[in-house]
Amino acid sequence: MSALSFEILATDANGYARRGRMQLAHGVVETPVFMPVGTQATVKSMTPADLTDDIKADIILGNTYHLMLRPGADLVEKMGGLHRFMGWERPILTDSGGFQVWSLGELRKIEEHGVRFRSHIDGAEVFLGPKESMEIQRKLGSDIVMAFDECTPYPATYAEAEESMQMSMRWAGECREHLPVNETQALFGIVQGGMYPELRIKSLQALSAIDFEGIAIGGLSVGEPKEEMMAMLDALAPHLPVDKPHYVMGVGTPDDLIEGIDRGIDMFDCVMPTRNARNGTLFTDDGKLNIKNLCHAEDPRPIMHDCDCYTCRNFSRAYLRHLYMAKEILSSRLNTLHNLHYYCTLMQRARDAIAEENWPAFRHQFLQRYRGKA
Amino acid sequence: MSALSFEILATDANGYARRGRMQLAHGVVETPVFMPVGTQATVKSMTPADLTDDIKADIILGNTYHLMLRPGADLVEKMGGLHRFMGWERPILTDSGGFQVWSLGELRKIEEHGVRFRSHIDGAEVFLGPKESMEIQRKLGSDIVMAFDECTPYPATYAEAEESMQMSMRWAGECREHLPVNETQALFGIVQGGMYPELRIKSLQALSAIDFEGIAIGGLSVGEPKEEMMAMLDALAPHLPVDKPHYVMGVGTPDDLIEGIDRGIDMFDCVMPTRNARNGTLFTDDGKLNIKNLCHAEDPRPIMHDCDCYTCRNFSRAYLRHLYMAKEILSSRLNTLHNLHYYCTLMQRARDAIAEENWPAFRHQFLQRYRGKA
Ligand SMILES: [Zn+2]
Ligand SMILES: [Zn+2]
Repeated sequence: MSALSFEILATDANGYARRGRMQLAHGVVETPVFMPVGTQATVKSMTPADLTDDIKADIILGNTYHLMLRPGADLVEKMGGLHRFMGWERPILTDSGGFQVWSLGELRKIEEHGVRFRSHIDGAEVFLGPKESMEIQRKLGSDIVMAFDECTPYPATYAEAEESMQMSMRWAGECREHLPVNETQALFGIVQGGMYPELRIKSLQALSAIDFEGIAIGGLSVGEPKEEMMAMLDALAPHLPVDKPHYVMGVGTPDDLIEGIDRGIDMFDCVMPTRNARNGTLFTDDGKLNIKNLCHAEDPRPIMHDCDCYTCRNFSRAYLRHLYMAKEILSSRLNTLHNLHYYCTLMQRARDAIAEENWPAFRHQFLQRYRGKA
Repeated sequence: MSALSFEILATDANGYARRGRMQLAHGVVETPVFMPVGTQATVKSMTPADLTDDIKADIILGNTYHLMLRPGADLVEKMGGLHRFMGWERPILTDSGGFQVWSLGELRKIEEHGVRFRSHIDGAEVFLGPKESMEIQRKLGSDIVMAFDECTPYPATYAEAEESMQMSMRWAGECREHLPVNETQALFGIVQGGMYPELRIKSLQALSAIDFEGIAIGGLSVGEPKEEMMAMLDALAPHLPVDKPHYVMGVGTPDDLIEGIDRGIDMFDCVMPTRNARNGTLFTDDGKLNIKNLCHAEDPRPIMHDCDCYTCRNFSRAYLRHLYMAKEILSSRLNTLHNLHYYCTLMQRARDAIAEENWPAFRHQFLQRYRGKA
């Protein structure tokens, strides 16, 4: 049996939106899915119990770059792998470390077989390439491993984007060689090519020659206008392999997710719900709400009257504002719980809408209201 | 019916230790009891659900000084009182604000009817005395209200301690006048008198002339040697009214609690388990454990093998060390959960030992092991 089997349960009659189900080594993931980000072997401020019982997350993401530096892949392996180490029994996807290394800027140097960089923790020199990334992700024991690639900078000329993409495609092949098809860890290839549809489609063709269990779209949400990101997803949608899961990396706002699903995307991850929560920004069907604002000081209402998260069931906006102003840890915790619950519930609503053949109306109504046009 | 009824269920045959039960407006409190400190309308990093389901706290403490400054007593009252505001349905004890104001040092000025000080938040001038403290605690709606007193500095001469104690006793009478006996809020008087047993006993006599529902011992754990604190509790034990609950304020370590119970104390509060948790110090039957230490880096064991808190049931010392080193919020949360669970469970063990007529042996064995002499 393969490490990933993917089944499509329903598809929007006139578009690309689909409702699916992935079987992975540590369990089932219903798609479209949002994956909370657990950078340092923890989704910031959340326990595994919060994520399963309240948020109902099927899968979370771990960051190879952070984990390799602290506590180190060898330690995680020794402690029984990332699942056991952090007490999370459901599926985990790990990124390759490429994106974080790319974000280091001046501190990194790209070579033919990977990237040399200095640790942001202790300044030690580290080398990370396809071979090293596969070895580290094997030690972490994630259900889905991501190929090591270069995130093409934005903006980039056609020639720069082409060269970068071709290197990522060579690395993609090396990743599969180092992590052959097996029963416990699936491997996803990543489409690159900057903002050039022609290069993106070439990248997709290069990946289809390699036996990946899923296809990711990288290098988006890196500073380009939203229209450009959506245009790229539009250009790619007809070419994505129908029988494999499609994952757009590092995206995005609730409306981005809905627009992504409409373009055939099955999987999303983003630090937005967790990071914004810690900054006091809360997501609702009516858009973002800033809990710092004085208008919430005496408001006895929950964040959302029809949200059934622990935060909304028990606490007023007035209390949440107080916790934020008093810089209490519980502020980060209660806000994160709501935001992740909101994102995961939004995916549940999208899955229901697709299954009930109601996707176009659901999408339209959601976007109108979220963008304040209802 | 009174706002507090207190029943003694068992007493150590040869000493002062007793097992009791308090009935308050918001529920029953089994004694001896430890009260987690919820300074700013939250026990730092904990939800009410953690406190009831995992820690099994019967009662928590709120700080009048902090709440009056932020979010303000009027706001809390408007939101339905402190219980409703913070989502805690069980009993709450609020302190009077006196201790925090006293801690301000240079920023405060003592007058006949209270203390004038500047807010540490915005520098605004505030006046707090017996009348104001009773009014604020009435708005907060706590089950147990503490009299407004002056915490006598340490060290103090006999004359200084006597003058301070006499002012506190005048204020104690004013507190009862402003908060007469009623059905929802009990009022505790506070014994002062510095480190002079004679003054302490005079203070106790002055309080017994006023109809308080409980007696607290203040001005301890303020820098004096532990032997001096215990000697003071020894001196007071024979004089404490048997039919009222005895509360020693701001104490202490696990062994302090056991020694306090042995001297007839029923109630304790302290920031130690919560503050130490955030600094990586964890309590066990074998004494304190510092999770930062390198020896825990690859330790797969829980903090305590026979602790059934969520932290010990799910996470290794290695993982807890990683969270601490990575400065993750979850570190504070998991450590706090264990420490409060440890304190509250220790009180349960003490209650059982007294009820089973096994107190002297339990105390002896606990102290030997905790102090590393077992
Ligand atoms: Zn909510
Ligand atoms: Zn524990």
